[in-house]
Amino acid sequence: MNAEIIAVGSELLLGQIVNSNAQFISEQLADLGVNVYYHTSVGDNPARLKHAIEVAQKRADLLIFTGGLGPTKDDLTKETISNSLGTTLSMDNEALESIKTYFQRVNREMTPNNEKQALILTDSHVLKNENGMAPGMLLKKEDKAYMLLPGPPSEMRPMFETYGKQAILNLLQKKEVIHSRVLRFFGIGEAQLETELEELIVNQTNPTIAPLAGDGEVTLRLTAKHESRDIAVSLLDKVEKEVLQIVGEYFYGYNHDSLVEVGFNMLKKKSLTLSCAESLTGGLFQGQLTSIPGASEVLSGGVVCYQDEVKKKILSVKESTLKQYSAVSEQCARELAENVRELFATDIGISFTGVAGPGPFEGQPAGTVWIGLSMKDGRTKAFPLNLGGGRNGNRKRTAKYGWHYLIKELS
Amino acid sequence: MNAEIIAVGSELLLGQIVNSNAQFISEQLADLGVNVYYHTSVGDNPARLKHAIEVAQKRADLLIFTGGLGPTKDDLTKETISNSLGTTLSMDNEALESIKTYFQRVNREMTPNNEKQALILTDSHVLKNENGMAPGMLLKKEDKAYMLLPGPPSEMRPMFETYGKQAILNLLQKKEVIHSRVLRFFGIGEAQLETELEELIVNQTNPTIAPLAGDGEVTLRLTAKHESRDIAVSLLDKVEKEVLQIVGEYFYGYNHDSLVEVGFNMLKKKSLTLSCAESLTGGLFQGQLTSIPGASEVLSGGVVCYQDEVKKKILSVKESTLKQYSAVSEQCARELAENVRELFATDIGISFTGVAGPGPFEGQPAGTVWIGLSMKDGRTKAFPLNLGGGRNGNRKRTAKYGWHYLIKELS
Repeated sequence: MNAEIIAVGSELLLGQIVNSNAQFISEQLADLGVNVYYHTSVGDNPARLKHAIEVAQKRADLLIFTGGLGPTKDDLTKETISNSLGTTLSMDNEALESIKTYFQRVNREMTPNNEKQALILTDSHVLKNENGMAPGMLLKKEDKAYMLLPGPPSEMRPMFETYGKQAILNLLQKKEVIHSRVLRFFGIGEAQLETELEELIVNQTNPTIAPLAGDGEVTLRLTAKHESRDIAVSLLDKVEKEVLQIVGEYFYGYNHDSLVEVGFNMLKKKSLTLSCAESLTGGLFQGQLTSIPGASEVLSGGVVCYQDEVKKKILSVKESTLKQYSAVSEQCARELAENVRELFATDIGISFTGVAGPGPFEGQPAGTVWIGLSMKDGRTKAFPLNLGGGRNGNRKRTAKYGWHYLIKELS
Repeated sequence: MNAEIIAVGSELLLGQIVNSNAQFISEQLADLGVNVYYHTSVGDNPARLKHAIEVAQKRADLLIFTGGLGPTKDDLTKETISNSLGTTLSMDNEALESIKTYFQRVNREMTPNNEKQALILTDSHVLKNENGMAPGMLLKKEDKAYMLLPGPPSEMRPMFETYGKQAILNLLQKKEVIHSRVLRFFGIGEAQLETELEELIVNQTNPTIAPLAGDGEVTLRLTAKHESRDIAVSLLDKVEKEVLQIVGEYFYGYNHDSLVEVGFNMLKKKSLTLSCAESLTGGLFQGQLTSIPGASEVLSGGVVCYQDEVKKKILSVKESTLKQYSAVSEQCARELAENVRELFATDIGISFTGVAGPGPFEGQPAGTVWIGLSMKDGRTKAFPLNLGGGRNGNRKRTAKYGWHYLIKELS
């Protein structure tokens, strides 16, 4: 079975809101083994919605609509579908009662246009709205199915999870499951990853392997199809192992993992504390770490040392280091990492110094970066980077490289 | 002219990412006076993409594609459009050179599949990619125009703003007739803003006034329609003045202004320097400030003082203050702001201390916050907040309130 998701609402076409409903439903349908081939967004306009319905009928078995079920004149999804399919609308008494109860509860007068929300496509199966007024519904007609869901995500999501999923499972002839796993990599480009895995990607059909780049990282999505969930999982395990034999050194996590979380969990597990000297990153590294609940268990704190004066006065970087090598140097990165670790009395000190951009600065081009890592056993390392992005790309990638080197050090 | 936005990428249909590109482009097109009637998302599949192109050709004058311009085998937007239109692809030497330079700069080997990114639709106008490798392009063919943009928002957005908008303006027969201006407010809720402006909003038709809330801020979008840009601007000026007479105390900027930028520009203009003591915000405040080029002109630096030990040892907060009032107190916020200002020898010191959440912490609920502001003339102020969000909502809103109070102080 394949589906098309049709979002109805002029606010989408004006760019006032993002279509997060399509993402949510797509993710849910993938788990149910339903292919999604298209998303469409269309405004509150009957003629254009009708055209979208006609196009989708030619290419999908299941049409899922979001939005346009409310009380106002703009809300015309039901009316247009009914018109397009040559069916009628009927009052659903249970839905009407629940709308009346809602108005009594909030002590507001029910205006007549609210009754419209209780109208359903005749002969459709009602999907109860437990977080709002407009009910959803599923209509089977000829060889197609039409599911109508409300637009507000706070109503749509629980309705889909509680009632919509089951209604779709009932529609499905067979129970093939799509099971996906995302592997996350850092420190390797998309093209290089694909080149190294070329043979595997080409020859591999179940699961399939799809690379995706974004935010300076690369992910591989493994997607297995099988009636048995256990077998799907073992197919994924097998291919994951093959992938990691080739590019395992760049792998850091699964699905929605982030470098920050993986690094934080490692520090926490090993009961290690961290302090930071941030010149280039200017607080970004610590700001990301402290977004995680419990960050105080590993982060003691740090210094944003945006000026040479601060590097000298607070972090005791030698005047001679700054004069001889400048602030953007291996020597400065080492001193910053060592001295912040000592000042904050932590197990690990990490430092970031470089030219974020626009550059050049003191003769060095934008993207020139040094990361320092000082361990309590006395070892200090420094890593150079030459980044090619703009100011904020460079800052964000530097923070990620900080976690990358820290994770490698702790592995 | 009306447009359809076609996003290409299986990751959209699998629900891995949300189609934020369609939102961004729609918003931009509205300002240009271009109607958007449909959004379509389609996977990395030539036959289905071809079908989407055929459908869109029947209902739009301008087809804007995002995604599928990268180096891998999955990336087939150019190839499919070329095939569908019966045109060819040509190597763009300038784009090729810039890709080669990129690889040299980052000192990585360029794999052959990267060359594919420099192929363009023959006779198209190239839109330069200043934040990545794949160029965008615009092709006029018969009575349609086809714009191809890269998928990553960090590349697509600046490309569209710098080159795409102008290319569309060149396509338009008549000059833009819709002119918008966004007024930005902080410290007032959407409902209150709408109530105070109710009469104005209801009676005002050109420009229209549309409130929108998001990210703890409220904006008003004024949209004027007129053939003359000058008259549209004067209509906007007039209504802006009326709005600010009522709610001017909460106004801080226009369009894409941010509190950070407005605050930074004020400090810069007055040649004032800033230092920060961040407990609750953990680097977030400085991380945002240092995202702005030239931040070093105003920010000397600061301390992330996540632990009481750090507050005492590095920022000289009195032991008795922490014992008597705790770290989340007016007294602690004052000492942090004063002491960081002295330690870093700046004109202004700002401090953030509070319970981000999950709470409660030391008897105070999550969302309890104190912001301290110390000026070089000796005045110190402290502002309490009681925020109702989750951990990261509270952190972000606290950073915004920091700028809000700083801007008020400097105004």
